[in-house]
Amino acid sequence: MSKESRRREALVYHAKPKPGKIQIVPTKKYATQRDLSLAYSPGVAEPCLEIAKDKNNVYKYTIKGNLVAVITNGTAVLGLGNIGPEASKPVMEGKALLFKIFADIDVFDIEIDTENINAFIETVKNIAPTFGGINLEDIKAPEAFEIERRLKEELDIPVMHDDQHGTAIISAAALLNALELAKKKIHNVKIVISGAGAAAVSCAKLYKTFGAKAENMVMLDSKGVIRKDNTNLSEEKREFATSRKIDTLAEAMNKADVFLGLSVQDIVTPAMLKTMNKRPIVFAMANPNPEIDYNLAIQTRNDIIMATGRSDHPNQVNNVLGFPYIFRGALDVRATKINEEMKRAAVLALASLAKEPVPEQVNIAYGETKLNYGFDYIIPKPSDPRLITHIPPAVARAAMESGVATEPITDWQKYEDELNERMGSDNKLVRLLHSRAKTSPKKIVFAEADHLDVLKAAQIVFEEGIGIPILLGKKEVILELMLEIDFDDKIEIIDPKSDEEEERRNLYAKEYWNKRKRNGVTYFDAQKLMRERNYFAAMMVNLEHADA
Amino acid sequence: MSKESRRREALVYHAKPKPGKIQIVPTKKYATQRDLSLAYSPGVAEPCLEIAKDKNNVYKYTIKGNLVAVITNGTAVLGLGNIGPEASKPVMEGKALLFKIFADIDVFDIEIDTENINAFIETVKNIAPTFGGINLEDIKAPEAFEIERRLKEELDIPVMHDDQHGTAIISAAALLNALELAKKKIHNVKIVISGAGAAAVSCAKLYKTFGAKAENMVMLDSKGVIRKDNTNLSEEKREFATSRKIDTLAEAMNKADVFLGLSVQDIVTPAMLKTMNKRPIVFAMANPNPEIDYNLAIQTRNDIIMATGRSDHPNQVNNVLGFPYIFRGALDVRATKINEEMKRAAVLALASLAKEPVPEQVNIAYGETKLNYGFDYIIPKPSDPRLITHIPPAVARAAMESGVATEPITDWQKYEDELNERMGSDNKLVRLLHSRAKTSPKKIVFAEADHLDVLKAAQIVFEEGIGIPILLGKKEVILELMLEIDFDDKIEIIDPKSDEEEERRNLYAKEYWNKRKRNGVTYFDAQKLMRERNYFAAMMVNLEHADA
Repeated sequence: MSKESRRREALVYHAKPKPGKIQIVPTKKYATQRDLSLAYSPGVAEPCLEIAKDKNNVYKYTIKGNLVAVITNGTAVLGLGNIGPEASKPVMEGKALLFKIFADIDVFDIEIDTENINAFIETVKNIAPTFGGINLEDIKAPEAFEIERRLKEELDIPVMHDDQHGTAIISAAALLNALELAKKKIHNVKIVISGAGAAAVSCAKLYKTFGAKAENMVMLDSKGVIRKDNTNLSEEKREFATSRKIDTLAEAMNKADVFLGLSVQDIVTPAMLKTMNKRPIVFAMANPNPEIDYNLAIQTRNDIIMATGRSDHPNQVNNVLGFPYIFRGALDVRATKINEEMKRAAVLALASLAKEPVPEQVNIAYGETKLNYGFDYIIPKPSDPRLITHIPPAVARAAMESGVATEPITDWQKYEDELNERMGSDNKLVRLLHSRAKTSPKKIVFAEADHLDVLKAAQIVFEEGIGIPILLGKKEVILELMLEIDFDDKIEIIDPKSDEEEERRNLYAKEYWNKRKRNGVTYFDAQKLMRERNYFAAMMVNLEHADA
Repeated sequence: MSKESRRREALVYHAKPKPGKIQIVPTKKYATQRDLSLAYSPGVAEPCLEIAKDKNNVYKYTIKGNLVAVITNGTAVLGLGNIGPEASKPVMEGKALLFKIFADIDVFDIEIDTENINAFIETVKNIAPTFGGINLEDIKAPEAFEIERRLKEELDIPVMHDDQHGTAIISAAALLNALELAKKKIHNVKIVISGAGAAAVSCAKLYKTFGAKAENMVMLDSKGVIRKDNTNLSEEKREFATSRKIDTLAEAMNKADVFLGLSVQDIVTPAMLKTMNKRPIVFAMANPNPEIDYNLAIQTRNDIIMATGRSDHPNQVNNVLGFPYIFRGALDVRATKINEEMKRAAVLALASLAKEPVPEQVNIAYGETKLNYGFDYIIPKPSDPRLITHIPPAVARAAMESGVATEPITDWQKYEDELNERMGSDNKLVRLLHSRAKTSPKKIVFAEADHLDVLKAAQIVFEEGIGIPILLGKKEVILELMLEIDFDDKIEIIDPKSDEEEERRNLYAKEYWNKRKRNGVTYFDAQKLMRERNYFAAMMVNLEHADA
């Protein structure tokens, strides 16, 4: 599939059959006059009055307690820069979708039309009664620092800027495990940090709380090494400026133990890698392409512990391991903050989960024979169904112990059961399974191939190598739809109603008639039935003209 | 059911099984790695880039075009007054539910924590990129006037304050039909308006556009008749101040043709009613109890045309006849405003729909033998499935003709089909049907009565007189649950597993065994099966110990 096809596929996914990725649906009954008189006037006055009496009741009668606002002004969206509030909306809706499927948290995405810090803060504060928590997203530095700091101070609900803390938390978990596997001590290791944005600074700060020393760090921005003798440094950068008299990444990498990349692709060379200490830890997290290509890196050093932001290599540092569960834990004890203790608890819970035996379904989902704690598995996989029961309780406990939980949990077993129940008995994540029939691709008949959904399924079956589709339906209709979704491969299309298929129809009809004549089916009936796609498809499978 | 029970029922409805009335769900696939790479990084970058190139593409790739914000600051909630943003949230979530089920519009409810006009306006403007339209709700006058006026001017998406315009639109439709039935001309009739809040003023203004004369109106606030010689009148009130030298409602009602009540219950007396002109039109819309009791009014004057805000009398003036369809029409042509032309179009469409033959399903839903245009049916019923295809197209056309539509509709038949499709082939409103088996209540077995949902169904069946429930399950569990939902009536509870029921179990087992022994069922099997509630229930019906 070409890059252009991928682009078109992403656009079709967002546009069809209706624009966007989320919707609102009622959770209560509404089918009768009686239901509506409870949902709205006059019944609705009762919860209103209860909340007017005691504001805390808003958690009892509305979705506030499970509702997070994902808020941006679109000034630093993905790697695309300042593209504005409207253009950031697909990302924010995407985040809403992730919150829901990974932690059953409802999200309103809010795009704010201002780059002014005070206006932004006032707006968020004004709409805050609506929400149980606030996830700030894709706001550029340094504004993001002040916005987060002030909102945390001035609001009594959890606020977190995920771009800063998400990566920090996940990478810290990975780092703790990588150091253990490399047999190194965090207070000794030399750390090179390429990038000095919000995320990079936040990583460095969080690593410090686990024992890393600022004097062992070298941070680089787009102009090179950030040195103490630079004038004009922001407060954030000054904390990690080095007193060493070096300027380049190559110099910094010499005898370093850890490389943390939150910058741009391909800036790390094999030569640099070779100058690093033994068992180097390289987290090359530039998106979509890392600071050094994964395969190049492991070919250069076979003692490397490597992580990237990509799902197609081991050790993906993916924020989705963090934010859904951190907010879940914070909401469930009605924490007033997401504080350092809660973030550190999430780090430790993630790190420890990676050491436990991996459930078989995760192995299957990732096509691995056996994932095991080691160089190629230092953090859990996003589809690990144990995340929901491991991370939120750790975060909730930390909130309680640090005094920010207003509704402490008492029965932890019950809480774990509730968490499992949220995800449904058929945990959605389990469904992240890939059918892996690649070894012997089968012919699969799609009887309703002129439906967009069915056709897209056929496309995926083909492109993922799961099987070889055979499409039934009107040729012109299917070809037109295929064009629309960039399904431009040569695929067999059969119209059971067409003249060309008369011979096959008769063959199938005869076979069907043979089987069913005792039930009163005539040959004429059978011939007529074979014009129907479902019967035709069934006979194809029956006569082994197709496998499924 | 006591008032206290009703109260408890409303609270349980809002609190259980989870707090609130709405949730967010994905509309796109998310089960595989591939889906997620489209929904989020890296695929999501493509729609972002398309929108960055052309802001209008936000309507193509996000839910903006179907997303309305219901916004309040909680300063005038229902009849409860200024109860604050948190306490207003149940109403706003309720409105979200109504928007969805009546017009398939997605709604984020936003509660704003400020009473300052400028701060409110700035906040709404800042979050506006998120939404396709804005429904202002329950904001007190006179602030609401300026807030709506300025937001309409300063934003390029439709803005409507429903409290002002909703009632005006629905009551105007009712008024036009009532006048026709009373054989009166709008420019001649004398109109008394009790109430001078946002809705009352808005009604008066809208009636004027249909020909009513300000000099024929008398408006009253809580202090009495608003007279021109009063000093200190707001601009809004001045427009409808009378030059007549009268002070009381009784004086105003003398020889009036129309009474419009948006005030408080029971202020109109039979004596006043008797002084009105022949075929008086009385819209007594105070909630929940009208300015004069419906039955008292029709007993006093048999030539009266009466409307109220209540669903248990004919001619309910219900805002749900307006806002879902007005926003639907405005969104579907991407109107930049909801202007007077669009509101007037909604009025005329509602008035004309009332004159068309009523579908049988509406008659059934309301337990009427035959609804017919006349004194007792001057406006459509909220559950009329034709509303979705009648009102939005009229509003959309008016938007196009008045030059505020940016995406005009060209194929009206296709648009109507789309509207029907939105509501689903089993139009949700059809399900507003009441089962009307009241004449001969039947015994109905509820096999899973220890489930809250099932038990509530049983309660409704009982309280609405549909049937007499028999509850199967563990007695203590059911009794406890009944207590929780205030189901305090005497209802038969049977635990098929209990010793007391041994005799009945044996009877049913024998019967079952007789029927099934040819299929290899032993009497012992049958006895065991009868401990299962579903089999037990089935045999109760079989042996006519219950009807269903």
